[in-house]
Amino acid sequence: MAPSRRELLGTGIRALTVPMFMASTASSYSISEVEGRLAKGSGIEGVSKQDLPTPCLLLDLDALEENIRKMASHAKAAGLDLRPHGKTHKCSEIAKRQVGAGALGLCVATIREAEAMADAGIGGLLLTSEAVGPNKIHRLIRLAGRKPDTMAVVDHEDNARELDEAASDAGVRLRVLVDVDPLGRRTGVPPGPGAVRLAETVDRLGNLDLRGVHGYCGASSHVTGFEARKAHSERYMGPVLETYNSMRRKGLPVEIMSGASTGTYNIDSNLEGMTELQVGSYAVMDVDYRRIGGASGDVYDDFRPALHVLATVVSKNHDDIATVDAGLKALATDRSFGPDVASPQGLSYAFRGDEHGALTLEDPNARLSLGDKVELLVPHCDPNVNLYDRMYCVRGDAVRQVWKVDARGHV
Amino acid sequence: MAPSRRELLGTGIRALTVPMFMASTASSYSISEVEGRLAKGSGIEGVSKQDLPTPCLLLDLDALEENIRKMASHAKAAGLDLRPHGKTHKCSEIAKRQVGAGALGLCVATIREAEAMADAGIGGLLLTSEAVGPNKIHRLIRLAGRKPDTMAVVDHEDNARELDEAASDAGVRLRVLVDVDPLGRRTGVPPGPGAVRLAETVDRLGNLDLRGVHGYCGASSHVTGFEARKAHSERYMGPVLETYNSMRRKGLPVEIMSGASTGTYNIDSNLEGMTELQVGSYAVMDVDYRRIGGASGDVYDDFRPALHVLATVVSKNHDDIATVDAGLKALATDRSFGPDVASPQGLSYAFRGDEHGALTLEDPNARLSLGDKVELLVPHCDPNVNLYDRMYCVRGDAVRQVWKVDARGHV
Repeated sequence: MAPSRRELLGTGIRALTVPMFMASTASSYSISEVEGRLAKGSGIEGVSKQDLPTPCLLLDLDALEENIRKMASHAKAAGLDLRPHGKTHKCSEIAKRQVGAGALGLCVATIREAEAMADAGIGGLLLTSEAVGPNKIHRLIRLAGRKPDTMAVVDHEDNARELDEAASDAGVRLRVLVDVDPLGRRTGVPPGPGAVRLAETVDRLGNLDLRGVHGYCGASSHVTGFEARKAHSERYMGPVLETYNSMRRKGLPVEIMSGASTGTYNIDSNLEGMTELQVGSYAVMDVDYRRIGGASGDVYDDFRPALHVLATVVSKNHDDIATVDAGLKALATDRSFGPDVASPQGLSYAFRGDEHGALTLEDPNARLSLGDKVELLVPHCDPNVNLYDRMYCVRGDAVRQVWKVDARGHV
Repeated sequence: MAPSRRELLGTGIRALTVPMFMASTASSYSISEVEGRLAKGSGIEGVSKQDLPTPCLLLDLDALEENIRKMASHAKAAGLDLRPHGKTHKCSEIAKRQVGAGALGLCVATIREAEAMADAGIGGLLLTSEAVGPNKIHRLIRLAGRKPDTMAVVDHEDNARELDEAASDAGVRLRVLVDVDPLGRRTGVPPGPGAVRLAETVDRLGNLDLRGVHGYCGASSHVTGFEARKAHSERYMGPVLETYNSMRRKGLPVEIMSGASTGTYNIDSNLEGMTELQVGSYAVMDVDYRRIGGASGDVYDDFRPALHVLATVVSKNHDDIATVDAGLKALATDRSFGPDVASPQGLSYAFRGDEHGALTLEDPNARLSLGDKVELLVPHCDPNVNLYDRMYCVRGDAVRQVWKVDARGHV
């Protein structure tokens, strides 16, 4: 249900009675002032999501917690380790909850993410992108010095030798997985003898500790329909697992076989040889994953949507549309679709430039007025989170905490 | 030309001799350490763009300065005021240079941008998006208290009355332009009598000062071909200018008629009644604008591309492609095309997920190796800048300054 205009105008008055918005002008603080108050422990008791500046990112704590519990239970039941991917949320507060629920660490996609997670006390980090070039190599080695259980991936002998040399210079050892490419021609060495030779090379290098194989089949993750997705993942992960098993037969110390996505978590868990899951999106979900279909229905609803963009109707001069303050800079645009309108019902969204979107009133009885709030389910969670510096954590309408997207930033 | 592998490996050694990268491991500082050094005045002398962590945003100062000068000269010659749009760059350092070259202030798209620009000492701010809802209204009014020359836009009588009431409560006056919608059905009141009535309402409200009309025709800005674009803008801006002239004939105090984009700056300057230009993208440019064609050629090259993403080849396991570390989170994805590869020549780019892109070697003689750097011309400047917290300012290969994208942030 959309809040009524009366209710919305009321927020300014209600806000007068709560600690964060105490000034006579109500809800009028800049984010630096809000954060200043939070830092001082002023709290956010009594603040509703209706009071928040828009556009902003809402994280539904009930949904998040249920998703984290459910995936942890799945991994435990399957006898697999769980190292969720932090590239989705870039948020150490979420990472802490994943580890608290039984994950043995976090995957990260960038050295910046690794540094931020380590700073927040998260261990068991696996950097799933190759660290190439002096800047990344030396930051990785330095991190391994601080956190010896950090792992990296390699897909090229030259890079393995550079990592070994840098580790030697710094007097540290670096744990390594060989990145084997199921299909994507993105990163990774193709499955087969070349991958085994790379593992042997890593094993011989004096400052690298070979630990296993990384095999992520991104192309399988969003195949529509559970059976088609299962067939796709089995087809392309098969050669990766054969390669992993070849390494084992040769006696190489490969204890870890890491892979799987939120789309294939209940498929890849049954693949012979898999030892750990690096699923990411399940924690918060998005439109993209809901569209692929689940094991038992057209909508993939194994996990609950927890991430929405809150927007405000800022222009209303036409009967059939309302303009909101969330556009290309507030929502991921890498898919062919925009966000779903989660609340109120009966609306569809279309981008209208950098700062705006247009809501079309599908239901002729639906009404929207200036100042009304809408909640948009994010199209694609990873790049959507990346647009924001913070998430407002809510239970129902109440804002409970503000979490920094502390692993964000392209450096 | 791509830097050779030897040159790239050399950067680690060269870096040993320069102040910022003094540690024995070379180029191994996290961005917080880099910024700490900059804050201490350690400088970045001798640092090359090859030393930067990737992906990162490069700003070519020579091109930026030339673009700023050229648009300032154009406006002066046309007898128009210039209030460039800061939504493009969200960077007060660029804004200062635009004002220094003669701009009378800056346009901004969000209250956050307005606050950040004001904090940096920029005056003459025009907020070109409607401020709706208690949070934005009260922040705007507070800003107008600090900076009385701040202007806002309105497209609805209800909003005008709320602004008036908030201004009254705070004891300030607010300058207002009526937002007239040429075509976009995004924000703005349609041209004609309704817009004139809204201007009369604003003029009657005791705490608002009517100053003019805002009319931005986003739909014209990217029409391909100069003559087609000219016809488009004249057709849709015509009714806006007629509405503005109606207000003038009625004796309303409308001194300002603001509009135009980088695509129409040399078209709208000739429209009778226009008083100021709110062009934005010209300062840094992008692939999107280069494609629309200029007055004298297929490529719109009135202004120079100044904004690139620097990326590193991080995987090279196939002859025909190389994978770089810039993907969906490093480049704007809202257009149907990705970035152009500015350097080295002979490459095309395709997205490969959140953190990666694939370069296809169009020229069979082109060679790329692990660690090579590439420069990608941004697809669409506004949302591309929005992904980053800082820009590395370069002249040629030398990094001269680091500027914060200080008006970024969705709040």
